[in-house]
Amino acid sequence: MSEFFRGIEKIAYEGPDSKNPLAFKHYDAEAMVGGKTMAEHLRFSVAFWHSFKGGGIDPFGPTPVYDRPWDRATDPMQRAEDTLRAAFEFITKLGAPFYCWHDRDIAPEGESLKESNDRLDHIVGLAEQLQADTGVRLLWGTSNCFSNARFTHGAATNPDAHVFAWAAAQIKKAMECTHRLGGANYVFWGGREGYSSLLNTNMAHEQDQLARFLHMAVEHKKAIGFTGTLLVEPKPKEPTKHQYDYDAATVLSFLRKYDLLDEFKLNIEANHATLAGHTFEHDLQLASADGKLGSIDANRGDYLLGWDTDQFPTDLYSTTYAMLVILKQGGIASGGINFDAKVRRGSCDLEDLFHAHIGGMDSFARGLTLAQRIIDDGALDSFVEARYASYRSGIGEKIMRGETNFAELEAYVHQHGEPEKRSGREEMLENIVNSYL
Amino acid sequence: MSEFFRGIEKIAYEGPDSKNPLAFKHYDAEAMVGGKTMAEHLRFSVAFWHSFKGGGIDPFGPTPVYDRPWDRATDPMQRAEDTLRAAFEFITKLGAPFYCWHDRDIAPEGESLKESNDRLDHIVGLAEQLQADTGVRLLWGTSNCFSNARFTHGAATNPDAHVFAWAAAQIKKAMECTHRLGGANYVFWGGREGYSSLLNTNMAHEQDQLARFLHMAVEHKKAIGFTGTLLVEPKPKEPTKHQYDYDAATVLSFLRKYDLLDEFKLNIEANHATLAGHTFEHDLQLASADGKLGSIDANRGDYLLGWDTDQFPTDLYSTTYAMLVILKQGGIASGGINFDAKVRRGSCDLEDLFHAHIGGMDSFARGLTLAQRIIDDGALDSFVEARYASYRSGIGEKIMRGETNFAELEAYVHQHGEPEKRSGREEMLENIVNSYL
Amino acid sequence: MSEFFRGIEKIAYEGPDSKNPLAFKHYDAEAMVGGKTMAEHLRFSVAFWHSFKGGGIDPFGPTPVYDRPWDRATDPMQRAEDTLRAAFEFITKLGAPFYCWHDRDIAPEGESLKESNDRLDHIVGLAEQLQADTGVRLLWGTSNCFSNARFTHGAATNPDAHVFAWAAAQIKKAMECTHRLGGANYVFWGGREGYSSLLNTNMAHEQDQLARFLHMAVEHKKAIGFTGTLLVEPKPKEPTKHQYDYDAATVLSFLRKYDLLDEFKLNIEANHATLAGHTFEHDLQLASADGKLGSIDANRGDYLLGWDTDQFPTDLYSTTYAMLVILKQGGIASGGINFDAKVRRGSCDLEDLFHAHIGGMDSFARGLTLAQRIIDDGALDSFVEARYASYRSGIGEKIMRGETNFAELEAYVHQHGEPEKRSGREEMLENIVNSYL
Amino acid sequence: MSEFFRGIEKIAYEGPDSKNPLAFKHYDAEAMVGGKTMAEHLRFSVAFWHSFKGGGIDPFGPTPVYDRPWDRATDPMQRAEDTLRAAFEFITKLGAPFYCWHDRDIAPEGESLKESNDRLDHIVGLAEQLQADTGVRLLWGTSNCFSNARFTHGAATNPDAHVFAWAAAQIKKAMECTHRLGGANYVFWGGREGYSSLLNTNMAHEQDQLARFLHMAVEHKKAIGFTGTLLVEPKPKEPTKHQYDYDAATVLSFLRKYDLLDEFKLNIEANHATLAGHTFEHDLQLASADGKLGSIDANRGDYLLGWDTDQFPTDLYSTTYAMLVILKQGGIASGGINFDAKVRRGSCDLEDLFHAHIGGMDSFARGLTLAQRIIDDGALDSFVEARYASYRSGIGEKIMRGETNFAELEAYVHQHGEPEKRSGREEMLENIVNSYL
Repeated sequence: MSEFFRGIEKIAYEGPDSKNPLAFKHYDAEAMVGGKTMAEHLRFSVAFWHSFKGGGIDPFGPTPVYDRPWDRATDPMQRAEDTLRAAFEFITKLGAPFYCWHDRDIAPEGESLKESNDRLDHIVGLAEQLQADTGVRLLWGTSNCFSNARFTHGAATNPDAHVFAWAAAQIKKAMECTHRLGGANYVFWGGREGYSSLLNTNMAHEQDQLARFLHMAVEHKKAIGFTGTLLVEPKPKEPTKHQYDYDAATVLSFLRKYDLLDEFKLNIEANHATLAGHTFEHDLQLASADGKLGSIDANRGDYLLGWDTDQFPTDLYSTTYAMLVILKQGGIASGGINFDAKVRRGSCDLEDLFHAHIGGMDSFARGLTLAQRIIDDGALDSFVEARYASYRSGIGEKIMRGETNFAELEAYVHQHGEPEKRSGREEMLENIVNSYL
Repeated sequence: MSEFFRGIEKIAYEGPDSKNPLAFKHYDAEAMVGGKTMAEHLRFSVAFWHSFKGGGIDPFGPTPVYDRPWDRATDPMQRAEDTLRAAFEFITKLGAPFYCWHDRDIAPEGESLKESNDRLDHIVGLAEQLQADTGVRLLWGTSNCFSNARFTHGAATNPDAHVFAWAAAQIKKAMECTHRLGGANYVFWGGREGYSSLLNTNMAHEQDQLARFLHMAVEHKKAIGFTGTLLVEPKPKEPTKHQYDYDAATVLSFLRKYDLLDEFKLNIEANHATLAGHTFEHDLQLASADGKLGSIDANRGDYLLGWDTDQFPTDLYSTTYAMLVILKQGGIASGGINFDAKVRRGSCDLEDLFHAHIGGMDSFARGLTLAQRIIDDGALDSFVEARYASYRSGIGEKIMRGETNFAELEAYVHQHGEPEKRSGREEMLENIVNSYL
Repeated sequence: MSEFFRGIEKIAYEGPDSKNPLAFKHYDAEAMVGGKTMAEHLRFSVAFWHSFKGGGIDPFGPTPVYDRPWDRATDPMQRAEDTLRAAFEFITKLGAPFYCWHDRDIAPEGESLKESNDRLDHIVGLAEQLQADTGVRLLWGTSNCFSNARFTHGAATNPDAHVFAWAAAQIKKAMECTHRLGGANYVFWGGREGYSSLLNTNMAHEQDQLARFLHMAVEHKKAIGFTGTLLVEPKPKEPTKHQYDYDAATVLSFLRKYDLLDEFKLNIEANHATLAGHTFEHDLQLASADGKLGSIDANRGDYLLGWDTDQFPTDLYSTTYAMLVILKQGGIASGGINFDAKVRRGSCDLEDLFHAHIGGMDSFARGLTLAQRIIDDGALDSFVEARYASYRSGIGEKIMRGETNFAELEAYVHQHGEPEKRSGREEMLENIVNSYL
Repeated sequence: MSEFFRGIEKIAYEGPDSKNPLAFKHYDAEAMVGGKTMAEHLRFSVAFWHSFKGGGIDPFGPTPVYDRPWDRATDPMQRAEDTLRAAFEFITKLGAPFYCWHDRDIAPEGESLKESNDRLDHIVGLAEQLQADTGVRLLWGTSNCFSNARFTHGAATNPDAHVFAWAAAQIKKAMECTHRLGGANYVFWGGREGYSSLLNTNMAHEQDQLARFLHMAVEHKKAIGFTGTLLVEPKPKEPTKHQYDYDAATVLSFLRKYDLLDEFKLNIEANHATLAGHTFEHDLQLASADGKLGSIDANRGDYLLGWDTDQFPTDLYSTTYAMLVILKQGGIASGGINFDAKVRRGSCDLEDLFHAHIGGMDSFARGLTLAQRIIDDGALDSFVEARYASYRSGIGEKIMRGETNFAELEAYVHQHGEPEKRSGREEMLENIVNSYL
């Protein structure tokens, strides 16, 4: 079998002083942090679509820049096999334990649903074997119901019930393939579940459609015995003007409204949160507060650009804040840290794929270490705990227990007068964070 | 009693050809549109704070630009009385049926809660009399729990229970004053209910606090027999970095989570919607779809500026789209169109207040007329209805009724193959809207 | 010869009461406005790339949605010929006097520069004949130096001089083809002239490169005897993170710095201006104030989306403000109004191309009519003129003539004290604009 | 003389392991970095307005939150003296070598220009003495021509020549006071030099006014013998909708157009750059490339908020990138690093002022150290130099020397064919930056 990444060996941990760009400086899979190994904490996953199907294209450059050795066969199924083998070679050399796919990434769409499904079955068979050979596991599968022209006006939210049926058929199969490969989760990202213009849209009807769809997905999950977690991934816009799964709060509202909350968790992506006007850590905390942070798509946007740049995550502040949320909720459970990120258009060499993933993994490893130390030291928590102390006794406790009312609180104020001014100490807390970096 | 707006008479409707800047060209209160008068449809309200307490200040000009004749007395209570009389003179000359206030707008805060409440009682007495004299009614009251230094870290979401109690006492009184004046609604806008930094914040705890607070407000409403509507007003940011009532979807999620949905509707503000990344009509539709569009704060932001510019609404596209939503839900019920807008810093003359409100009222009157014609002609609706026709029979009907599943839909696709491509006709629909302008 | 737009006849002017979606309601080519025909004022142009090469693709849907009858031949040159013929049929039926192209739109790139140039020569020959047959003229040509992978790191600003040479060779040919077809202008839009990251960029060097390039272009223009106008088109970002031709002010600065100001004017695009944080009319006025507004790319962005949506222009406020600038500078000269706009992904039918252009042309025709009336009435100008009156005599005149200094002005203030407050009357002026709509 | 910051001693350098929040961990004034002391490199300055006049107010909280001991005297001149003494105590305890002021910060405006000037003279006398006593120096002075109502429509760009004269008189005096105190620079920030609406604005006239004003300022500088640097500070918006000094490129364009380039440099503020859509380092590089980077206003914005948040700079990426630019241009010359930043509204204690400045100084000290190491190692520069190597010989050299043309370059391409693809290695370079943190 041919080797695609010739000249690159398994990436080793060499420690922070190493100058070798193809080595980890911080990610040491078996190193213990707070009672678990780094590998157990971080559960890194490689995204099949960006790293093996991406060509560096963009709206002003619609043809591929990269020249990939796995993309040369003339037969599409041969290319699909080569691509899958290349992916497993890469993931193994990188030392990531997981990968993720869309159905149409791993197997090209056929002339009919039947042909598409047959192709999927064939490739999933190969994936099964490669997983067994390498120990690499499937973090999650998902279905691409947004690229094909038929989904232009939406999949589950399409005004045409025929398209709704297509999406149902396609996601049914993708769920089954995920189940067959032992996927730990299944993700719903509604790439076209939104609108381009309100002028031709019945928003309430489309949301009802989406709810019907997700209820059927839950039924199908049970029907096939899939025990992984179902995840919804919020995104506010792009490709549509407005996507119904705007942000964590909007998705939680939707799940509550349609009685779906018990069946789903969220897959939070950094760049999607920032496009919605939130920090990554905000949406992580919001989901986590409801016990619904299921997995993360790790990447980085550019705050000055208004589209999903999907850069690899290297900002140590961001990885630290993310890991603080994850550690505080006791870990990411069946989820993981999936690099939904792509090398830049100009990073056209095979080795750039390694630089990118090594940088992301090292950045999260540092974030993990720093977050654990911040927690262990109580560096931030002790301040926060003291700040809310008044709710743990007296009138504050009555408030939280629901044992008081406006009249009693008014009497309290007449009696106690003006509260004391207290500093929120933001600058000091920021300095403390910097002292850990 | 002195007249404040000398030389300006009651604003008359003079029709579209009038060149008189101090006349209505489109708002004709008694004109019938779709079976109701314009006045009944639009229920215009003047915002006390911007138009009578605003000085044209901004972050780089913290002292007033305007020189208001009602703001000259040295005694603060005399100023408060003069200001209230000026407001009623203005509203009467303008011919708006409603006004709105914050507690601290109409009566200045005293040295203690008791003094503040006494002052409120006094001014509310005067308001009662002026309402009776003029027929002007109170659309809603609300409480300013954000300007005073004590609310720096929040009101109901303050880390200090003592401040929570203050907010409770203050809002208790504001609800009572609203009730006394026959207010049609009471509004909750949480000016500081959010965070400045996640480093010192327990977000989950603060949201629990807010829910406790709103439950007590509902209890108090019932205790005093207030039958108006309780409204929550979303805003994403400013003054805080993140406000918990981010947008309509977020507020609906919150109300659902904490079992408050039956007790509240939403007051949607144009500029708040756009700051959250949505069009005004999006948030109106979203609230309306849940039966929760209770009232609107009519203004206009500047899409290229990142703060609440609160300009008067003059964009006819926006007023038309807003009125389409309101007409389709059968009207604004107990709510109204409140001009939560301020004249520009440079618009320092008394007559500018009239220009601004006349422009806003004419713009909504045109929006109403255009929207009614669009609806009567079925200009947009007929297209939309046809677009979703597939859900009213066959497989589509089964989907909406919950009588099918993934397996049946898969079979449907195997049988029927590829759906037809259909144009969404956005450009044609935009041309149709323009043909009404 | 086959007809591509069967069933659609030449679009006629039917007046504002027409309900025929395939008729002009406002654009009446020969109607006189302020001493010129609408056609002379507006000089509409159809953009070859969007309307004939566009497939409705986007970053999440990289394969075409539209099924165009001119895109079916297997031979690429046959497709190119068919496409050109379709374009001339469309433009003729629409009644637009101009079109625009990139070199690679009209003729597909070959295996070598020589083959590409030969193909261009062939197609330009056909264009020459079609122009003669139909009377349609070339508003401008330009070169696509951004889509091909070789331009990933820039064209003139590429770190590799070899790529610089490629761009030079390609633009040389595009200028010659424009000249051959009697193009009225030649446009430089630097699609990749910017950077993706400052970490690997020598910004000062790249700007020097760009200046060298433009100087050579000027020399070449003279060498071939091209007498059209050279235009630079600003855009702030997308596809690169930062493009050197950020906005009108930045381009004017660049042209001044490198002594190129006399040789270039600007082609201002609405959506590029808004992406840079400016209104369309701002960048138009800025360019016009320097005598450098050469042409416009008419489209419309979505203020809530951070990418170039290139929607057709239908906002009547925007078209009116644009036409005010153009009328005040005495017309657009050799430039025109080019619809650099694309139908939505979901507008997949041939007739959608007509709806879109009809809507844009009608919107600019209304903008023209309204702007001319506003100017004729002095509705805004009389206010503005009065506002600056103090600079036309006394101390103000001395200021503008450069005949005073700080000491004299200080003495003036000591003598005259505080200036009077004057309202800017923004709300009244906005109402006046609305009274024209 | 009273001590305002009781209990806080001179801030000492204690090294990176110190847990004392009131000590420097990284800023060691006399430590040598690249041949100069940290103090010489960084030239820190404290901003009088934010730290001593700021009250924590914001648009929704217009009354002060902070209770400052220097703000208690009833006589305004006594308060001004107390405030100045408090500032010198703070700056001395902090160990910053410089401060900056607006005229109206240090001395309150009087009833007339004469009284205002007399007050300034008095306070400047005190400042002279305090400077001599403490060794603290004036980095720059500037004039507040934006807060007073008279400047509502602009200062130099006001439509009323009388206001222009006021601005001239006021800035004349501020320049003289700066000169008297040995200020190293004088700054022009045009807080209201822009427009609120184009409807009432003659943009070209206003820009001509501004140019006339700056020419007079240059004359006055020479007249009084001031030898400091004149600096213009760009900002895009806020308080006005559009400010003429939008960003570095726009200001450079303006200075070139009006023949002012030789007389001015730029004062680049981080938060202003980001509001204009640029990174801080972008605007620094742009100014530096023209030899025009004169000084910096160090702070930090919030990318998700659309106003000037003026937070203290703590992001180590940003301080490192800034110091890279400054080191590469050979230092900041007469400029410095001025903390144009304010503690948060909730940071109401005196010690918060110390936390904030210590954090900012430590962050820039780390940025300096990291930048020097990156330069010394050639970690980024060696890559960049190699990337542009093709311009140092052969055809590239001819391009840069202006010794070739389009025809020769076309021949070059015919001969050499397609260029090689080269990776830009962005991910690797980002990893290298992280390896220094």
